[in-house]
Amino acid sequence: MNEFTLIQRCFQGWDITHPNVLQSIGDDCLVWSGSQPLVVSADTAVAGRHFPEWASPEQVAQRAFLPAVSDLAAMTATPAFFTLALTLPPATSEDWLTRFALRLRALAETYGIMLAGGDTTAGATLTLTLSVHGTCPHPVLRSGARSGDQIWVTGQLGQSAAALPYILEKREADAPRSWSEAYWNPQPPVLFASQLQGCIHSAIDLSDGLIGDAAHLARASECDLAIHLDRLPLENDLKQREDEGLKLALAGGDDYQLLFTADPVAEREIVALAAQAQVSVTKIGEVQAGKGDIRWYDSGLERQLPWQSFTHF
Amino acid sequence: MNEFTLIQRCFQGWDITHPNVLQSIGDDCLVWSGSQPLVVSADTAVAGRHFPEWASPEQVAQRAFLPAVSDLAAMTATPAFFTLALTLPPATSEDWLTRFALRLRALAETYGIMLAGGDTTAGATLTLTLSVHGTCPHPVLRSGARSGDQIWVTGQLGQSAAALPYILEKREADAPRSWSEAYWNPQPPVLFASQLQGCIHSAIDLSDGLIGDAAHLARASECDLAIHLDRLPLENDLKQREDEGLKLALAGGDDYQLLFTADPVAEREIVALAAQAQVSVTKIGEVQAGKGDIRWYDSGLERQLPWQSFTHF
Repeated sequence: MNEFTLIQRCFQGWDITHPNVLQSIGDDCLVWSGSQPLVVSADTAVAGRHFPEWASPEQVAQRAFLPAVSDLAAMTATPAFFTLALTLPPATSEDWLTRFALRLRALAETYGIMLAGGDTTAGATLTLTLSVHGTCPHPVLRSGARSGDQIWVTGQLGQSAAALPYILEKREADAPRSWSEAYWNPQPPVLFASQLQGCIHSAIDLSDGLIGDAAHLARASECDLAIHLDRLPLENDLKQREDEGLKLALAGGDDYQLLFTADPVAEREIVALAAQAQVSVTKIGEVQAGKGDIRWYDSGLERQLPWQSFTHF
Repeated sequence: MNEFTLIQRCFQGWDITHPNVLQSIGDDCLVWSGSQPLVVSADTAVAGRHFPEWASPEQVAQRAFLPAVSDLAAMTATPAFFTLALTLPPATSEDWLTRFALRLRALAETYGIMLAGGDTTAGATLTLTLSVHGTCPHPVLRSGARSGDQIWVTGQLGQSAAALPYILEKREADAPRSWSEAYWNPQPPVLFASQLQGCIHSAIDLSDGLIGDAAHLARASECDLAIHLDRLPLENDLKQREDEGLKLALAGGDDYQLLFTADPVAEREIVALAAQAQVSVTKIGEVQAGKGDIRWYDSGLERQLPWQSFTHF
């Protein structure tokens, strides 16, 4: 099977298109013509690093695609198109590729994003780089937090990190199903985020864990963040683990939920939009004047954290 | 050295910026706001496939960057910005990365393209995916060739493919210097191509060899191409090898020159623009009514070719 046959069979003719993509797969470049600002992020997933070598093709598609579109949510962008750079081990079967492409296609449809270009190469390690593009009249940056803002997070934290040892040891059945779901099939709140336009001041996606990502937002905004550990959205199984659960929620990474800040007057609208989008939201703290530090509180008392954020490299 | 320090030290603070990139490295996405159509291509280079494992960091930068911007030339686009997804083996040294980044920075400056985002991951095999973005009022497609067009190529063909065995056997000194230069440091005619706007009907970059790439253009345009083998731009060393040289020029790949078609009335302008850009151009045939076939001629007589195009996968 040569490169062209393979690509055509698996990756062309998908249903989802975009009116601003004037030329898609099949030329040297795709062509985009649109008047709105475009936000762009490149995200790589490597076998043995971002997912186990033995992951199913469907799981690989999920672990590559969902963290990538999470970056669009972080800008409150609406997904538009993506390119897929796929490096496949020589032994990859047509069956593997067909299943991978089918799952990717379903994900692209769910998130309303068009596959518009890519590159397929051979290499020893399965490696996927998605370059996702979204539209947004006014992209929300990490740097927009203002003193007095409330700090919000979506979803629940720490489940994906809690699942990881069970997954690596191939005993997922011993862990709550919600944990392995959070790892294999994270749910970045892309639609909800796109509705937050004009309603929030700053946002970042939680990929490295709250400690690291909150620090990025605080430094970019040149504000301090006061975060209340007892308000973090942890499910019961993790809450019962006390500090161990807290560490997973704060430093585990791989949540692909959204951290954002907004004026308190926006609270009612945020809660209404979240309910409509069936996304849970939790107020976890307040933005304060400062130089970019985080202060952690537990039952109202300041607490020093002994943990550091996850680093991908 | 953690991911953030590493990225900041090597890849931030480069001189070249773009007025339409409103937010660059440092947020979840970069932000682009421009009114012109954008063309986008993703290109992957893998160690051991697209360059030898022992290539220097400077050579790796060249072998990843230059084929990527060649895709912009194929649309007659002006380079705007790119993202770099870099998968580094765990043993990669700071020295290696510093040298790689310095060369990439110099290339970005030469081609006037801003590094605006990316992702750094660890993985067993050095893998680089560049997603290049260019602007273009009217992108030139593969599908625009018209019966009566002249067929042109830039530069000389086959040198990179001729160099390959010498490079893989580590005896580059035995080959003409121009050959290894063509392999390590191809010169896609990006500036010249951007000046061809409005002057040509169709274009494709020569990455897989003339046989394959001409076939793509012919099929996309639903026209036949008549190509004269005795007119192909081959340097003397390759001409002397007769059929062996011809095979390298036709099926070798990795030229990163431009194949384009234009109305004969545009000839004078094309020649003038080429002279100004110091790019050599050669008329190698004519577009004819047809269904997408290529006919090859040698001294006016039709000839069947026994070779196939290079496939990357």
